[in-house]
Amino acid sequence: MTTYEDTTARLLVKCPDKPGLVAAVSSFFFHHGSNITAFDQHSSAAEGGTFFLRLEFQTPHLDLGRAHLERAFAQAVAAPYNMDYRISYAAEPKKMALLVSKVDHALQEILWRWTRGEMPAEITMVISNHPDLRAAVEAFDVPFHHVPVTKETKREAEDRILGLLEGQADVVVLARYMQILTGEFVKHYPNRIVNIHHSFLPAFIGANPYRQAAERGVKLIGATAHYVTEDLDMGPIIEQDVIRVTHRLDVATLKELGCDIERNVLARAVKWHLEDRVLVHEGKTVVFN
Amino acid sequence: MTTYEDTTARLLVKCPDKPGLVAAVSSFFFHHGSNITAFDQHSSAAEGGTFFLRLEFQTPHLDLGRAHLERAFAQAVAAPYNMDYRISYAAEPKKMALLVSKVDHALQEILWRWTRGEMPAEITMVISNHPDLRAAVEAFDVPFHHVPVTKETKREAEDRILGLLEGQADVVVLARYMQILTGEFVKHYPNRIVNIHHSFLPAFIGANPYRQAAERGVKLIGATAHYVTEDLDMGPIIEQDVIRVTHRLDVATLKELGCDIERNVLARAVKWHLEDRVLVHEGKTVVFN
Amino acid sequence: MTTYEDTTARLLVKCPDKPGLVAAVSSFFFHHGSNITAFDQHSSAAEGGTFFLRLEFQTPHLDLGRAHLERAFAQAVAAPYNMDYRISYAAEPKKMALLVSKVDHALQEILWRWTRGEMPAEITMVISNHPDLRAAVEAFDVPFHHVPVTKETKREAEDRILGLLEGQADVVVLARYMQILTGEFVKHYPNRIVNIHHSFLPAFIGANPYRQAAERGVKLIGATAHYVTEDLDMGPIIEQDVIRVTHRLDVATLKELGCDIERNVLARAVKWHLEDRVLVHEGKTVVFN
Amino acid sequence: MTTYEDTTARLLVKCPDKPGLVAAVSSFFFHHGSNITAFDQHSSAAEGGTFFLRLEFQTPHLDLGRAHLERAFAQAVAAPYNMDYRISYAAEPKKMALLVSKVDHALQEILWRWTRGEMPAEITMVISNHPDLRAAVEAFDVPFHHVPVTKETKREAEDRILGLLEGQADVVVLARYMQILTGEFVKHYPNRIVNIHHSFLPAFIGANPYRQAAERGVKLIGATAHYVTEDLDMGPIIEQDVIRVTHRLDVATLKELGCDIERNVLARAVKWHLEDRVLVHEGKTVVFN
Repeated sequence: MTTYEDTTARLLVKCPDKPGLVAAVSSFFFHHGSNITAFDQHSSAAEGGTFFLRLEFQTPHLDLGRAHLERAFAQAVAAPYNMDYRISYAAEPKKMALLVSKVDHALQEILWRWTRGEMPAEITMVISNHPDLRAAVEAFDVPFHHVPVTKETKREAEDRILGLLEGQADVVVLARYMQILTGEFVKHYPNRIVNIHHSFLPAFIGANPYRQAAERGVKLIGATAHYVTEDLDMGPIIEQDVIRVTHRLDVATLKELGCDIERNVLARAVKWHLEDRVLVHEGKTVVFN
Repeated sequence: MTTYEDTTARLLVKCPDKPGLVAAVSSFFFHHGSNITAFDQHSSAAEGGTFFLRLEFQTPHLDLGRAHLERAFAQAVAAPYNMDYRISYAAEPKKMALLVSKVDHALQEILWRWTRGEMPAEITMVISNHPDLRAAVEAFDVPFHHVPVTKETKREAEDRILGLLEGQADVVVLARYMQILTGEFVKHYPNRIVNIHHSFLPAFIGANPYRQAAERGVKLIGATAHYVTEDLDMGPIIEQDVIRVTHRLDVATLKELGCDIERNVLARAVKWHLEDRVLVHEGKTVVFN
Repeated sequence: MTTYEDTTARLLVKCPDKPGLVAAVSSFFFHHGSNITAFDQHSSAAEGGTFFLRLEFQTPHLDLGRAHLERAFAQAVAAPYNMDYRISYAAEPKKMALLVSKVDHALQEILWRWTRGEMPAEITMVISNHPDLRAAVEAFDVPFHHVPVTKETKREAEDRILGLLEGQADVVVLARYMQILTGEFVKHYPNRIVNIHHSFLPAFIGANPYRQAAERGVKLIGATAHYVTEDLDMGPIIEQDVIRVTHRLDVATLKELGCDIERNVLARAVKWHLEDRVLVHEGKTVVFN
Repeated sequence: MTTYEDTTARLLVKCPDKPGLVAAVSSFFFHHGSNITAFDQHSSAAEGGTFFLRLEFQTPHLDLGRAHLERAFAQAVAAPYNMDYRISYAAEPKKMALLVSKVDHALQEILWRWTRGEMPAEITMVISNHPDLRAAVEAFDVPFHHVPVTKETKREAEDRILGLLEGQADVVVLARYMQILTGEFVKHYPNRIVNIHHSFLPAFIGANPYRQAAERGVKLIGATAHYVTEDLDMGPIIEQDVIRVTHRLDVATLKELGCDIERNVLARAVKWHLEDRVLVHEGKTVVFN
């Protein structure tokens, strides 16, 4: 983890593993005058696997402007190695929209960390299917949109949300948004919708996980942050955590502890996404943290 | 937790919750000259629930011998409150038998802690469906019995095991015993067979949990110690734990880490059982630790 | 942990250990018509030690009013056993004042949990030696007092604070208050001032613990909540926690992680104090949680 | 972490940070036909800091033999960048000697993991100042040497130990060796003697840390693995861990829990050292794990 310097840029790469990849990438940046200040790599298999790379490079002494640099990288490195990649700049934080229903702990945690400078994003809006949290959101000087949803109006509601998000959201965070998004909606933001699920997935998929947990008598309860896919609760897991519980705790206390894990797990996952630390491959994530 | 003094006895109680229970139990021991040195209670509900109690009392100044004391308790306290209870004495540790197959980490951990005085039990035997661990077990001066099992001979094998256990086992520990016990067998030791499952139940029920975990891309792997019931992997959970994993770890390392959790979780669960800290109620445990 | 029912009362006891204590206390409440719904005890030694007790009892069916009950308990139980004790009622939450300087994470956490109903207290005021957090505090409808402190005015400032607290504070929480309180001040609130120290005490006593930790190269950083005594950083520890750190983390990130532990550790310690779960004996705490 | 393939080699580098380092190293291995399968780097500061690198490379397709490769690397890369470096080969595991006194938990853990293939070392001997553990060690087919130490014979004893170690120890592990080594001795194995200290350093430096911890009333106890330097308990920390404790635990149980942390922390630290994951710089470690 590093602080957000305006001069830092990040490269994320996914491609078939081949000899020479590290040399090709590092030489490119060296020859263009950029110092590499962080470097993480991973291969999914000893041979014939997929190669993942994240690097942070410094822009001040680059001999090319951004557009030229990106074109040069595409030609000289990305094309020959068949890379899926993206470059981002700390000086241009991602636009982030939050969806929420009535409970506010996950939302508050992210807004609060954001005001402290711990979330490198431009928060463009909060959208809710309930009006309850308007004042809490507006206290942070963040626009609040109330978009009610019923069974009958789900399609129109999603269209309205998509309209609000248009051009305003590089990432969408579901901070305990209690509506299930349609596959249609999800397709607009592949691996860019982060959700918090209030259980240690894949245990207790579905509704009422705390009640399920209490009935099964587990000794740890957890939370899972994942990217949303069309399959409910099956998206790539970004982060998870658990906390020890005992027979002494009543359901109210379980929920209280659960909320604490949820907000911390979601905050970490969102931060890692914003810092371009998460790559998705075959339904799983590589997290360079 | 306390050290094992020869003069300590323990009472475990389960009964319908009623006013006066604590007073009745504590007065009984006080009036018979016994000091209460540990006391834990739990009620499953504010009203009309089930009451659970564990207490440790000292025997030196008792005004009655064991048999008389137990009869007096039965009449004066247990009967009027309709108690399900048992009394045990630290001076008479439980007889424990271990079942194992080929992998030895869980077995070694328990034998090793036992030699260090951390497991208050008399280990009467190790039974295995493979001959591989004979030397390792006999090095601890513990009898080893090889009882092969095939699909065809399962019933006979279980009978042979039951024969070996007869009178020699207050508790049976499955230290990675890779055979599924029949309901018939389990009935002989209700809530007295402790198993270690190599996942965070209820996630990854069934075979190959590490492979399932790797495929799902979870960020924590775990282990679960539970009492064996007729329903596979559904018995009351005694203890669970997890460890953080990353994309960097290959399957061999995952298994290595998994073994570490398994042996620690099983050791804790067995120790708590031996110290009469675990009560079972409606498929869940109350663990006074 | 239990939810805060208006009908719950709590008894905290410290006294020389003697046979019959549990029986005496539990019989007293039973005979006066009160059901005991939680019961924790501890003895500091097998013989001749100190006995600690916390119990929760229900008030609706008591056969005596509060004043009579307390007098009866004093005579019938507390006096003969030489008890140091207190009784409190969930219906009358403690008055809590917070002292803070400029950084707000610990304060925000407590205020936020309080608004969610997780902190059973009446927050009467926030006092700060800086004006910066006035708006943030008043947004929670909590009175804010600015009491500047300089080397020369320390005594007067403390007098002013004592004046503000008079009758308004059963407990005082230092939520990162960067002034050292004098022994004079502390004497007014023995074992009733809770502080959060940003290290795993007793490591890194004194100033700049994060820098000390970075220089020593520790692999875990922590926080400690303790009661304030005249000896700086030496008061009874209520709660501690740590988080794993690596060489990869810069000082800014260390502080960020440190803030997270601090606010969680302080929140837990304050909650336990408010629920009468903490007893102090010979510079250490017994925490019944 | 990776499994130990005979074809894996590792490079560890420490040098002044300069642009082009990553490119120079990675290009070198690429041009000599070696695939890089793991790559970790760290800079101690954004500018003008120290650069640390660990990489794993595969040897089968190298176009040079070992001696030639190392000479080529020295000339082409190490010299121009002023590198402090070492290359090691998984096919040639380090020679490891263990020093121990009477308690065996740390020793047993390492020997046991070693027999399971989790410790990539050749264990050449165990040396003890007491004869007690001879049988336990020899059961693992490891030579045991008894070298008694008294105040008067300390110098001679260390000389005898150095004689035994000569040519037989790339790393020395103090698995609860209760003698303080002299500076003279330590100089022979700079950053190659791994010790386990039974506290969370820098808390509770010196003797009887568990007693100190109990007296201070800490809520977590820990263990620290570190390289031994002339300053007692001040060497670079490799790994630490803690476990939660409560007032309920007596000293015997504290020690039992402490032993569990000690053996796990030491095992991790030793493994990381054996896998060339630890670099020392200015009294601190960089651990690439």
